[in-house]
Amino acid sequence: MLCEIITIGDEILIGQIVDTNSAWIAQKFNEIGVRIKQISSVSDDRIHILNALKEASERADIIIITGGLGPTKDDITKKTLAEYFNVGFRRDEAVLEHVKALFKRFNPLVNELLETNKQQADVPENCLVLPNKNGTAPGMWFEDKGKVYVSMPGVPFEMMYLIEEEVIPKIKRQFKLPSIVHQTILTAGIGESFLAEKISKIEDSLPSNIKLAYLPKLGQVRLRLSAYGEDENTLRSEIEVFVHQIASLIPEYVIVTEDKPLEKAVLDFLDLHGKTLSTAESCTGGHIAQLITQHPGSSRSFLGGAVTYSNALKISVLGVQEHTLQQFGAVSEETVKEMAEGALRNLNSDYSIAVSGIAGPDGGTPEKPVGTVWVAVASKKQTVAKRFSFGNRRKQNIERSAINAFTMLHKLLVEEHA
Amino acid sequence: MLCEIITIGDEILIGQIVDTNSAWIAQKFNEIGVRIKQISSVSDDRIHILNALKEASERADIIIITGGLGPTKDDITKKTLAEYFNVGFRRDEAVLEHVKALFKRFNPLVNELLETNKQQADVPENCLVLPNKNGTAPGMWFEDKGKVYVSMPGVPFEMMYLIEEEVIPKIKRQFKLPSIVHQTILTAGIGESFLAEKISKIEDSLPSNIKLAYLPKLGQVRLRLSAYGEDENTLRSEIEVFVHQIASLIPEYVIVTEDKPLEKAVLDFLDLHGKTLSTAESCTGGHIAQLITQHPGSSRSFLGGAVTYSNALKISVLGVQEHTLQQFGAVSEETVKEMAEGALRNLNSDYSIAVSGIAGPDGGTPEKPVGTVWVAVASKKQTVAKRFSFGNRRKQNIERSAINAFTMLHKLLVEEHA
Repeated sequence: MLCEIITIGDEILIGQIVDTNSAWIAQKFNEIGVRIKQISSVSDDRIHILNALKEASERADIIIITGGLGPTKDDITKKTLAEYFNVGFRRDEAVLEHVKALFKRFNPLVNELLETNKQQADVPENCLVLPNKNGTAPGMWFEDKGKVYVSMPGVPFEMMYLIEEEVIPKIKRQFKLPSIVHQTILTAGIGESFLAEKISKIEDSLPSNIKLAYLPKLGQVRLRLSAYGEDENTLRSEIEVFVHQIASLIPEYVIVTEDKPLEKAVLDFLDLHGKTLSTAESCTGGHIAQLITQHPGSSRSFLGGAVTYSNALKISVLGVQEHTLQQFGAVSEETVKEMAEGALRNLNSDYSIAVSGIAGPDGGTPEKPVGTVWVAVASKKQTVAKRFSFGNRRKQNIERSAINAFTMLHKLLVEEHA
Repeated sequence: MLCEIITIGDEILIGQIVDTNSAWIAQKFNEIGVRIKQISSVSDDRIHILNALKEASERADIIIITGGLGPTKDDITKKTLAEYFNVGFRRDEAVLEHVKALFKRFNPLVNELLETNKQQADVPENCLVLPNKNGTAPGMWFEDKGKVYVSMPGVPFEMMYLIEEEVIPKIKRQFKLPSIVHQTILTAGIGESFLAEKISKIEDSLPSNIKLAYLPKLGQVRLRLSAYGEDENTLRSEIEVFVHQIASLIPEYVIVTEDKPLEKAVLDFLDLHGKTLSTAESCTGGHIAQLITQHPGSSRSFLGGAVTYSNALKISVLGVQEHTLQQFGAVSEETVKEMAEGALRNLNSDYSIAVSGIAGPDGGTPEKPVGTVWVAVASKKQTVAKRFSFGNRRKQNIERSAINAFTMLHKLLVEEHA
């Protein structure tokens, strides 16, 4: 079963927004065994949309269309779909009632529905309406010449609701799906080529229904094994054998054998052992705390953190000593260690992470160029600090700092809980 | 001049990574007047890549290909390009020297280059090599039947370097480009349909070479005007007239008339007036600080922040009173105001932002369901707090909280500096 995703809208093509919808849909569909053949972003242009629909329908069984369903004048998806299927429009009464109710809730003082809002209830005659609880534009399910087309608004949480509550259940009911099982090994501290060299024998021994992919990202490499077949349980145990082989060959680089973000692996480790964490961030500016707190339940292990951009706050909040800052500077082994130990003490946690560096683009000196970052991790027993020399890109320096901080903390945790 | 972007790699199609490269390339190309016709993500599959290249070459003048150039076995882009152009390979000596030098730098203890690394210097015979300072895989520029093809690694900072330093300068030298000028009005606090209704007369009066698009995102709507023509300065003054007309019609909702993130607009306002900011975050967990500190130069106005997930830290770091927490709870007007005032006092800033809420998915009660968030902004003169009722999605609740916090602070700043 093959699917293609078409996103409609100039905002993606001029780069004003990043298409996060497609990755999300792809993930959900892969879980139920629907493979994504292609993802295409096309413009708000009638002819271009018609061509994209035709091309996709020649390659795939299901075509998912997102975007271009808002109430404003630049949205032409609905009209173009009606033209593609060569049908007229009908006003859907249930959708109209829903639009009215939503409108009343958000605009209690306005009596009259705008005409543009009413038009949200107009749908191509041949579509089955998929109710959109979270917005005014409904999802639409079409069947034509043996292919399924689903059109949804591009607003992520409206699209997500429709996929989870309407589209996936309907696909599962309507089609017999094959199975795909993925398993990921998250590694850190080893480059892609060395990893490949180390595990090449296992890679060469993989059966033809199992594929291995390398997904490198700033100091981490995810190894993704994908097994294709009929029975999910068989695939799962088949893949498990190779995951185990690989993990046993490179134990010092394996963080976790699931598709889990690095910080979540660290957080789960802390949670499992009933330990708490705090953070003291300078150049990462809250990025580390935010990586942690994006995960539900992080409050079980994470107490909080300090973002101490100014030296004054490093002193008052974290208790870094003034003469340390004067003698060694904010970006130094001495300061970052005092930050980590200050977080441990003042924020009262079992473990802490501290980062101080020059993220750039300004602020570098010959001795400490942009990209110089000190990271420390501390426990009640020890404080470990390490200097990194990254590049000139601010965002990347912040991300690399965080990844290395979590890798260092993971190492410390494993060591102290061996 | 039309361009298409093809990204190669199963990792996008299974949703393991989001394609941020394409949006970035699209933005850069639009700035020089090259329009993106389509963005396609295709699999690591020979036939699929060949078809995508053919289809793209029928629609566009320039085809940009990213991904699939790493040293490992799952990357087949280079081979497929050679097949597409029907040419063999040559080993590029300059690339080989570069690979050797990079290898030596990162692996000083290893004498022998791996064969997989050497192969990075093998390129299709007909390509012009674009040196990749940041990595081992070179960029490749092909010209065939009047079309240009550029292949680059998918690692963002390698791709970015090649686009900025090699591809764009070469395109500018080689082609005469038309002009496109975009200008964005960032609005907050008004929905898309109401905005459209308010400015419909201006929209109807736009000349045919100027397009208006609505880009809604969680409580903000970006209005993007795009003018197409020959002379950039003419377009710029043409578009400026309409931007001014729109902004004068809805002054209370306009944050800024540039394509600038909301938090950057706030930061620039603070910087302009020499004022400082601190943050006190509970449910947003560092997201607000991180939004601020991602911008270079943010340290001029941003002193730092506290992420106080636990009540203990709300008391010790921000000076929230214990009986306030006991009587009203952490998610209350009283607590969030004390957090904002505590940040102002303990972190010693002119302005502060505080957020306390229930991001979910757990932690809700009948009186304070998931999505209940209190936001406060404070100055030396006043503290303003507001309660929001968002939905069930953690990520969205965090993002909406931040957007509303910045919108509230912007309002306070404008008011106090009128």
